[in-house]
Amino acid sequence: MSGITAHYQLYGKSGSFEKKAEDIALGLTIGSWTDLALLEQEQLKKHKGNVISVTELKDIQHPFHPEIIKGEIKIFYPAANFSTDIPAILTTVFGKLSLDGEVKLLDLEFDTNLLSHFPGPRFGIKGVREKLGVYERPLIMSIFKGVIGRDIEYLAEQLKQQAYGGVDLVKDDEILFDNPLTSFESRITAGREVLRQVYEETGHRTLYAVNLSGRTFELKDKAKKARELGADALLFNVHTYGLDALQMLAEDDEIQLPLMAHPAYSGAFTSSAYYGVSTSLVLGKLTRYAGADFSLFPSPYGSVALERSIALSLGEELTKISTVKQSFPVPSAGIHPGLVPLLMNDYGIDSIINAGGGIHGHPAGATGGGLAFRQAVTAVLEEIPLVQAAKQHSELKTALELWGL
Amino acid sequence: MSGITAHYQLYGKSGSFEKKAEDIALGLTIGSWTDLALLEQEQLKKHKGNVISVTELKDIQHPFHPEIIKGEIKIFYPAANFSTDIPAILTTVFGKLSLDGEVKLLDLEFDTNLLSHFPGPRFGIKGVREKLGVYERPLIMSIFKGVIGRDIEYLAEQLKQQAYGGVDLVKDDEILFDNPLTSFESRITAGREVLRQVYEETGHRTLYAVNLSGRTFELKDKAKKARELGADALLFNVHTYGLDALQMLAEDDEIQLPLMAHPAYSGAFTSSAYYGVSTSLVLGKLTRYAGADFSLFPSPYGSVALERSIALSLGEELTKISTVKQSFPVPSAGIHPGLVPLLMNDYGIDSIINAGGGIHGHPAGATGGGLAFRQAVTAVLEEIPLVQAAKQHSELKTALELWGL
Repeated sequence: MSGITAHYQLYGKSGSFEKKAEDIALGLTIGSWTDLALLEQEQLKKHKGNVISVTELKDIQHPFHPEIIKGEIKIFYPAANFSTDIPAILTTVFGKLSLDGEVKLLDLEFDTNLLSHFPGPRFGIKGVREKLGVYERPLIMSIFKGVIGRDIEYLAEQLKQQAYGGVDLVKDDEILFDNPLTSFESRITAGREVLRQVYEETGHRTLYAVNLSGRTFELKDKAKKARELGADALLFNVHTYGLDALQMLAEDDEIQLPLMAHPAYSGAFTSSAYYGVSTSLVLGKLTRYAGADFSLFPSPYGSVALERSIALSLGEELTKISTVKQSFPVPSAGIHPGLVPLLMNDYGIDSIINAGGGIHGHPAGATGGGLAFRQAVTAVLEEIPLVQAAKQHSELKTALELWGL
Repeated sequence: MSGITAHYQLYGKSGSFEKKAEDIALGLTIGSWTDLALLEQEQLKKHKGNVISVTELKDIQHPFHPEIIKGEIKIFYPAANFSTDIPAILTTVFGKLSLDGEVKLLDLEFDTNLLSHFPGPRFGIKGVREKLGVYERPLIMSIFKGVIGRDIEYLAEQLKQQAYGGVDLVKDDEILFDNPLTSFESRITAGREVLRQVYEETGHRTLYAVNLSGRTFELKDKAKKARELGADALLFNVHTYGLDALQMLAEDDEIQLPLMAHPAYSGAFTSSAYYGVSTSLVLGKLTRYAGADFSLFPSPYGSVALERSIALSLGEELTKISTVKQSFPVPSAGIHPGLVPLLMNDYGIDSIINAGGGIHGHPAGATGGGLAFRQAVTAVLEEIPLVQAAKQHSELKTALELWGL
């Protein structure tokens, strides 16, 4: 029987979890069981939620209520109960339940049949690498900074400086929306021209991810327009729209652009240890299944930081073997060239090194910032310590002096 | 200058909030200020976020870190920075910030100009009352129960029993999606026929809210189809799609059906006291502004309960004077006839009394359950104590005996 298994964390008295789990399994499916006639039980059997496991974590008391402990339960929901879309799945497994006290959705296991209804990334890590012709190192990405209220010339110049530094990708600031000074269309057109010039001049190719924003019902047409205008990729604040909107963009054969999922607003439902949904499920598995080629998330290094174990599990979720393609993990915030050895150790070469301040704040400008990152990556690949590499590379030297190792 | 003011709750050391607030106001708008040349400051002034107020709640220590206290800050964001849609607004005021530790978005103040871009409910309380011809009492709503795996005849019969009891509205179970046994279309058609029969037989009109589900890009067409087929209203699990999808449905002149917003999944981002978004903002203000004619939320009475003050503030948010129409507050879960005096005291007559178990669990069936609620409402309006009214009304008597007062 096809279906989905949800893992939950909750709190309760020792011995109470079994009943709670049964209540959830029934309450979120057929409602009642023991009251039903045998014939009805037979009819409804294939719709009944089933408790797969109940685990009491006896050592982990609730911080405010020491008489209750943490537990984890797994419940299987038959696919016959829901349509194969993320809204129906989330409503089934965590609709009403999200309002029922301290319960957190930790994971969802899709079986192969159910997963076949989800596209996953259209390009994935391999497809994005093919666009760039870069295979043997992590990609470097930088972010536009301080662009609100600026005109298109300002953005174009900032893009050029970033591209000169050898970054592979530049993304819009996620808080830059359609506006009279730098419209969606003008950013695509101007960006394309700048990056063409840099490519002709230097032979280096940079892709620009433009922020796809606006009303839900216009997104598809805007994305198609972007493609027509020659956009390289789309940035998308998926969590203010819902994951199904991302999937809609990923599936559309007339769009066919790499999609970069931004984590904006996701902290609202992933941050609590007691409520909401786990980071690895939201920014990892579901973002990948819905079709993001890139998933940005707070790195474990900066000031806006994810717990290290969570940030690492996210990387695994995005890249582990599956029937859908791999998404690029993009640990973000607080990244400077001195962190490159750690980043490459934590995330391997199939990841993106993404910096804002660590690019723009370089004393030699965004170009110097990009160069310093590229130099750091080359050094790590050649197994040369950064301090030693810095002797040959002034940009890296400056970066290490400024931000340390 | 048009814009939006966000209220946040956060924790920090006494004296630290002013700087934190300035950092947010700049970080979520133009990025930097004091580093800018005077000319640039002049250019960017109309885009700069501004700290409106900073309040330290010195008596409220953090439960785990007594050295830090609670604070509330208000920041104004110019409308020039974002497009006038909910995704852009949420990304601006709580995008990256939602990931930045213990900070909760308490409220958003839209100015009149900004609010004019949002539809609010198409019908509102007044419009829904006109459809029903009921003006002087709270409406009664009941919910389909145990319908997964059942056929259309089963649903039709359950609907009929509910309608016979005199309920004004019946809503689909939010976990019932499109399925071979009871498709969206068949539920509308069968429901319409049943309710027509009951109307012809009894003169009582009941509206049926069918669950609009499926893929985001199909919602508009499905809603139009529903209207063509004669649907009365649409139930919508808005929080698994995003509020903009609700707004899209509310604005479409070819849909024109009352929209009932279900709170499924909203607990994921409203439940924590430290993270996420306040219940009154999500299920109250934004649900109303986006166009829901009804907003369901956990009542303060049942087992899945909201804190009383929050549940009451939600009712106010949905009905207080505004340039947009009023949405019906629908406190749900744990409602039985004995609670009617309390419900009417708490929410007044412009609210919906919504019951599942309190209707279907009545010993005289769903019809008896509906009658008991209607009898209770009449008694309260006539200022007759329920116990006294129960002497004349067997259904109410039975309900009070079963569930108490």
